[in-house]
Amino acid sequence: MELLSTNVCFDGEHRRYRHTSKTVNGDMEFAVFLPPSAVGREPKAVPVLYWLSGLTCTDQNFMQKAGAQKLAAKLGLAIVCPDTSPRGLNLPGEDDSYDFGSGAGFYINATEEPWAAHYRMYDYVVSELPALVEQALPVTDQRSISGHSMGGHGALICALKNPGLYRSVSAFAPIANPTECAWGQKAFRGYLGDDQSRWEEWDATLLIPTARERLPLLVDQGTADEFLDSQLNPDALADVCEKFHHHINLRMHRGYDHSYFFIASFIEDHLNHHARALGLA
Amino acid sequence: MELLSTNVCFDGEHRRYRHTSKTVNGDMEFAVFLPPSAVGREPKAVPVLYWLSGLTCTDQNFMQKAGAQKLAAKLGLAIVCPDTSPRGLNLPGEDDSYDFGSGAGFYINATEEPWAAHYRMYDYVVSELPALVEQALPVTDQRSISGHSMGGHGALICALKNPGLYRSVSAFAPIANPTECAWGQKAFRGYLGDDQSRWEEWDATLLIPTARERLPLLVDQGTADEFLDSQLNPDALADVCEKFHHHINLRMHRGYDHSYFFIASFIEDHLNHHARALGLA
Repeated sequence: MELLSTNVCFDGEHRRYRHTSKTVNGDMEFAVFLPPSAVGREPKAVPVLYWLSGLTCTDQNFMQKAGAQKLAAKLGLAIVCPDTSPRGLNLPGEDDSYDFGSGAGFYINATEEPWAAHYRMYDYVVSELPALVEQALPVTDQRSISGHSMGGHGALICALKNPGLYRSVSAFAPIANPTECAWGQKAFRGYLGDDQSRWEEWDATLLIPTARERLPLLVDQGTADEFLDSQLNPDALADVCEKFHHHINLRMHRGYDHSYFFIASFIEDHLNHHARALGLA
Repeated sequence: MELLSTNVCFDGEHRRYRHTSKTVNGDMEFAVFLPPSAVGREPKAVPVLYWLSGLTCTDQNFMQKAGAQKLAAKLGLAIVCPDTSPRGLNLPGEDDSYDFGSGAGFYINATEEPWAAHYRMYDYVVSELPALVEQALPVTDQRSISGHSMGGHGALICALKNPGLYRSVSAFAPIANPTECAWGQKAFRGYLGDDQSRWEEWDATLLIPTARERLPLLVDQGTADEFLDSQLNPDALADVCEKFHHHINLRMHRGYDHSYFFIASFIEDHLNHHARALGLA
């Protein structure tokens, strides 16, 4: 694991690392924010919030734009941001569109060629990355997960598919029902093939009926989000949660859009939500 | 004045505008954050903090990365971010380097050709932009000014040269003595010519002895700033302030660098400094 850069931030440290991933068969970069308590003279292991970003993002968007570090520093919470896909593999079509391939791994395990050997972002996020981070950095095995848009979808499925792995989950403007929208269908067809029955295990809305752990869902959504009607469909998720008595707090925020200006406005509510579950607040 | 975009942010609004500037003889873009009190059903005029960004920046870097909106929303403070130069003029050499021409206007009025007709960012910032903003937006004529690096230099000279125009001034890692560093010398030679006596009126350190208004200076500087030794020289500014009894609060922050992670860590101190001067806190 190679340290690429360090920036002091709110008396903690923002670091970027590169490592060779066995899961995706290639190099991956990620960012971590370590609060002051984890980097002082007597470093203390702290719990981790994993943040999954949306289409086109790298590990940097959240760290630069969400304004999360101030409260994370105060709470004593680390934040880990993986990239949104493998990169630079020279697979055919890898860089042809913003919503498939590079920057668009969708946090699933691809089964179709040529993606199957590399596009395994689900395994990377739920297994390899936490193991690496917990071995190399001053963090505990207490984890929470959140994300935005494609990453909101990712956070929800990672939590729903892994009872006990996370203490809490939340999402901003998640692609809540990807089997029913264009972004999800394009990605699932490309990574998983035409058999739609194989898409279902990667759709949060379809996972709710059989979820073995009733982790409450905190979901924030802007009413002026340019993708709300065409891609996101939080109502489908809320409806199935209601039907199956899975607690969801879906907060609709009047006038807010899909940007980081929306995320920044409510990120502290999410950090406090996770901090409570992690015993920090 | 054309509205390019609006994002709701902390219940206020982040907006971007384009207008044709008489001062720079071309189109300019700027960003503004209006707090909730200025955009509600009964909008109230609020004071303005002008933020001047550093080399290579546009109006967007501060708005996306500094994390200033939360406190500005609470205080009832507008923030206006101009661009760092005219752009797209097709002047010879305009885009050849990161530290001269586009993105590097240095907040001075050029006298050398071909820059003299356009690179008049000083007049733009102290005259045309405030007049425009105060005519078109729900803001008062109570102004403060701050900035980073090249923009910290800009904030200091704008305040020092215009007694009464600003209620308060501050800077992050300013180019404090530009006539004595490579960035400043390159810019001043290019925009003002070889006669170094004509550079002096654009150097904060050289303006202190004759400053007619003793506005206290708040200056934050990271000790791990990669440009501290070669370009910034806050000690020269602090020394002349001490000699001429001009109040300066130069805060050296151990381990912080030149990035927005540094700015974000201390922006709220600066907002509170300006809010007190503007009667908001």
